[in-house]
Amino acid sequence: MTHSESPDHDLDTWTALAERLADAARPIALTYFRGDLDIEAKADMTPVTVADREAEAAMRALIEDAFPDHGIFGEEFGTVRPDAEHLWVLDPIDGTKSFVTGKPLFGTLIALLHRGRPVVGVIDAPALGERWVGAAGRATTFNGRPVRARPCTDLARAWLYATSPHMFEPDDVAAFERLRRRAHQAVYGADCYAYGLLAAGFVDLVAEAGMQPYDYCALVPVVEGAGGVITDWRGGPLTIGSDGRVLAAGDAAVHAAALQALAADGP
Amino acid sequence: MTHSESPDHDLDTWTALAERLADAARPIALTYFRGDLDIEAKADMTPVTVADREAEAAMRALIEDAFPDHGIFGEEFGTVRPDAEHLWVLDPIDGTKSFVTGKPLFGTLIALLHRGRPVVGVIDAPALGERWVGAAGRATTFNGRPVRARPCTDLARAWLYATSPHMFEPDDVAAFERLRRRAHQAVYGADCYAYGLLAAGFVDLVAEAGMQPYDYCALVPVVEGAGGVITDWRGGPLTIGSDGRVLAAGDAAVHAAALQALAADGP
Repeated sequence: MTHSESPDHDLDTWTALAERLADAARPIALTYFRGDLDIEAKADMTPVTVADREAEAAMRALIEDAFPDHGIFGEEFGTVRPDAEHLWVLDPIDGTKSFVTGKPLFGTLIALLHRGRPVVGVIDAPALGERWVGAAGRATTFNGRPVRARPCTDLARAWLYATSPHMFEPDDVAAFERLRRRAHQAVYGADCYAYGLLAAGFVDLVAEAGMQPYDYCALVPVVEGAGGVITDWRGGPLTIGSDGRVLAAGDAAVHAAALQALAADGP
Repeated sequence: MTHSESPDHDLDTWTALAERLADAARPIALTYFRGDLDIEAKADMTPVTVADREAEAAMRALIEDAFPDHGIFGEEFGTVRPDAEHLWVLDPIDGTKSFVTGKPLFGTLIALLHRGRPVVGVIDAPALGERWVGAAGRATTFNGRPVRARPCTDLARAWLYATSPHMFEPDDVAAFERLRRRAHQAVYGADCYAYGLLAAGFVDLVAEAGMQPYDYCALVPVVEGAGGVITDWRGGPLTIGSDGRVLAAGDAAVHAAALQALAADGP
């Protein structure tokens, strides 16, 4: 970042690079999607594919070329320059369970953090040819067109997504169950795609837990740029050090009601 | 059915008509998908869209034109000629919760029953441009290419799908939980698309309940034509009078193991 350039110019440059990363990851993901997979099991039993590694390597190379002083934190290859002012946070294949079972809702997540704050976010769905791009202070786009989250002031009318009801630790199960029972309907199985649906005005709430920074950082500019709210389960901002609980809402009113539902019997 | 024609010729004719029904339903579904929906709530709270009705009406008109003596049983408009030798069973939008939340995994289900036995089945995914076609004694096709379910002899390695863990009545919750805990992973949220993934060799098991004939009849030729097994939870054939519990497997061995898991503490 040179001081002769405006923040707007920087945001343009970073967003364009983020899209180039998604462009690079997409064909790699599609090469392996529904093909023969060389799947390993990590300690947490998440399947990891060759696609994951190749896509992250391709994205890292582009960042190193464009901004050799930026830091990079990726799911597969760890962190370089973690103390850099600008940190790229990458999840090449979010939704590996979808990926390995042929379900096309997996996504590539790309975030740029400036001094710890997510300022650019991309959710790319390679198998669907769909992409959400968010940037701080700008309208989120879906395949190039601006989108808005929808109003929803009544939790009892809210459509709620989560990837799985089994993603919650014992302490969080009861909290999620309270939220689910007060919401209109819970729908499962969409991974990062659920946040895109929320940003595009089709879903009111997403509540998840156990997420890593590369799972949630990219979601922040996408959801906020669509007029939504995304925080942890106590209403605090999502930073690289958050506890992995994420609550996104299209409407601030239903976000507040959902926070209450999650906290009702909490500490 | 005239006696001068061979069964093979009949199957060709019926399959071609089933595909024409899917062709007719697809653009109607897409007109309303992610648009403004005029959703009502039925007694069971399933959202029903205008798309559902228009698509079913279009399919019924094609059947009445081609085979005025065939019966029709559709989700939206009930049954005509229920005692006909040939009965078309239609679900214009399977996965209405996916549909209304913008998730592209909903499908159109078309079955032809001959004397109560499903002999033709189509799973069409309008938003994905994907279609499975099954016919008794023939190889199931996915977008025109033959597909096969994959081998899986060990329940502990099986990937299991269900639309939602909340779809089960209290008596069935424990049975599904036993199955889920013995399987490798449970993944949710794919509606009829899960059976297509199974037929294409990406998923090993699907277990669901509370299904209506228009939810499961079309699945039978698709799964069986791919070499899979699909029954109720006691191993009995799926007919129009089944109890709505469905167990599909890509491999007969894992189907047997899953039946055992479902029944372990059952009656």
